[in-house]
Amino acid sequence: MKKISLLLLLATLGCKQQILIEESLSPTFGIVIHGGAGTILKENMTPTKEAAYRKVLTEAIKVGHTILQNGGSSQEAVEKTIHVMEDSTLFNAGKGAVLNSNETIELDASFMNGSNLDAGAISGVSTIKNPISAAIKVMENSPHVMLSGKGAEDFAATQNLELVKPQYFITDRRVKALKRVKAQEALRNKPISSAETSFLQHQRYGTVGCVALDLEGNLAAGTSTGGMTNKKWNRIGDAPIIGAGTYANNATCAISATGWGEFFIRSVVAHDISALMEYKGFSIKEASRIVIHEKVGGLGGDGGVVGIDAKGNVAMEMNTPGMYRAHMDAEGNLNVKIYKK
Amino acid sequence: MKKISLLLLLATLGCKQQILIEESLSPTFGIVIHGGAGTILKENMTPTKEAAYRKVLTEAIKVGHTILQNGGSSQEAVEKTIHVMEDSTLFNAGKGAVLNSNETIELDASFMNGSNLDAGAISGVSTIKNPISAAIKVMENSPHVMLSGKGAEDFAATQNLELVKPQYFITDRRVKALKRVKAQEALRNKPISSAETSFLQHQRYGTVGCVALDLEGNLAAGTSTGGMTNKKWNRIGDAPIIGAGTYANNATCAISATGWGEFFIRSVVAHDISALMEYKGFSIKEASRIVIHEKVGGLGGDGGVVGIDAKGNVAMEMNTPGMYRAHMDAEGNLNVKIYKK
Repeated sequence: MKKISLLLLLATLGCKQQILIEESLSPTFGIVIHGGAGTILKENMTPTKEAAYRKVLTEAIKVGHTILQNGGSSQEAVEKTIHVMEDSTLFNAGKGAVLNSNETIELDASFMNGSNLDAGAISGVSTIKNPISAAIKVMENSPHVMLSGKGAEDFAATQNLELVKPQYFITDRRVKALKRVKAQEALRNKPISSAETSFLQHQRYGTVGCVALDLEGNLAAGTSTGGMTNKKWNRIGDAPIIGAGTYANNATCAISATGWGEFFIRSVVAHDISALMEYKGFSIKEASRIVIHEKVGGLGGDGGVVGIDAKGNVAMEMNTPGMYRAHMDAEGNLNVKIYKK
Repeated sequence: MKKISLLLLLATLGCKQQILIEESLSPTFGIVIHGGAGTILKENMTPTKEAAYRKVLTEAIKVGHTILQNGGSSQEAVEKTIHVMEDSTLFNAGKGAVLNSNETIELDASFMNGSNLDAGAISGVSTIKNPISAAIKVMENSPHVMLSGKGAEDFAATQNLELVKPQYFITDRRVKALKRVKAQEALRNKPISSAETSFLQHQRYGTVGCVALDLEGNLAAGTSTGGMTNKKWNRIGDAPIIGAGTYANNATCAISATGWGEFFIRSVVAHDISALMEYKGFSIKEASRIVIHEKVGGLGGDGGVVGIDAKGNVAMEMNTPGMYRAHMDAEGNLNVKIYKK
């Protein structure tokens, strides 16, 4: 109705303007992903490693883009896109997740549907191949939003999800990383090299996430992670916390965060970006900039977010030297990036 | 400095106005508590039971009020006030907490300091006598914000906290309530009486919480709960989620929530109230009203919040027939309430 009235109103204004109006009101779609933020520097990368990341980011986003292009839901696009990153050993989610201080893995994930504000999350699981799907099952088939540990696994076992042994997730790279972090921890307050500091900082990151807008105008957000290397005491980070690591609301935006989780919980990052859009009328870019740089940065934390709004505008904001990320719009334009600049 | 300049500026405006300005800038303090919202109806209460609730609410709030009056911190006031409610079997927190479907208890708690946005939380513990103190220890003595299950207990064991056997928390009343809920669950979709429906709804609630403003102008919020009766799969509700059940920020307010946790997580209740104050300039009362009635209520959820802002203005808002609650201001005026009206 709105579109027709506007077209009638503008019929006298000439063909070019009519097309512009039509474009801005036509359904659109889009998808944005991240594979973790951190001290990702060109000088520490090899061309082979960089190509490997670009390949998986491209493969992942194309899975979701194809779903959206064919009229599929943002929920399905987010879930299937995250599967590709969870199944890749390059990212700190699913296979290839970081190890906790007990040399085991504890995976966290959350999902939110912007059309009805329904949400699901799991924390501390080690036998569910694709944690993002378990989070979605919690949302769809349990009366709860968040399940944890053994209970989350018991629930998942009733949901036709692919289960694996914890060993499935463990990779040599993460075993070595844990040893290196523990060796540094043993040194306590002794000085360590700046290269080692950079390595240690990097062990906090690597979460994957996806946000999408589908042709129905529905937003969705999902986040999946292994948390931080050498984490202790069944620590829960921001990734499975609705409002912190993940938030989606058709009225504003869909956000997935990655970074130093403790600061992202304290800043309620994903919901704060939404609130700045809802209550101040800020764009997704401006809201993301304020929350990442002024709020999280102001507390001394770092990381990044990806976001998309109901018109397909996107944000890929970070206060770290890099963030593995990609955006693909309705026209099929693909933008894969690693470094800040 | 601000106060002195204003007084100088206004020195010529006459005594009355000067006193008004002085009052509004003088340090004040205040404290608000809740012991759960729900279908609390006068017709289901006995005078004895009502008196018992009023007695513990009064005792609890006076502990915190005395701390604040003597110049103690809002953090200490919140912690010690919540101890009284955790130690009472009347509330669903600490001793007297509800039972999960495995006939054991799993306690959750969180705390946030409004002066530096520091926060701590624990979920799913069953051996820590006062969970709110464990949440504070996570904030003070760990690099993390949120710990869960066995890990949270291992951490607590290093923190000089009083540990107890799980049996300590279990009361006859909650054992009977679990049996009654399970009996209804076994009936599945068969019709149940409205009295039983009311009973079942009530088993979702009973969380305790406290918010306080101290003479230094610092806000703090804490929440402690046993969750919901017959909960399954290591469910985590809103109480230990920073942004949902608990939030404090000197720039806006301190909030503690109680209600049907799943809806409070999806609505990011505590942070949304803060955001409405920060970004729209709403009062704490108006912000709480919108979030409880329009946001949570709009999704079909129910419960309530207590809040206090940096000037000592308070909110005690609910969309349930009642909420155990009390407020005490700097002048020592005490207001203890149970029913909505």
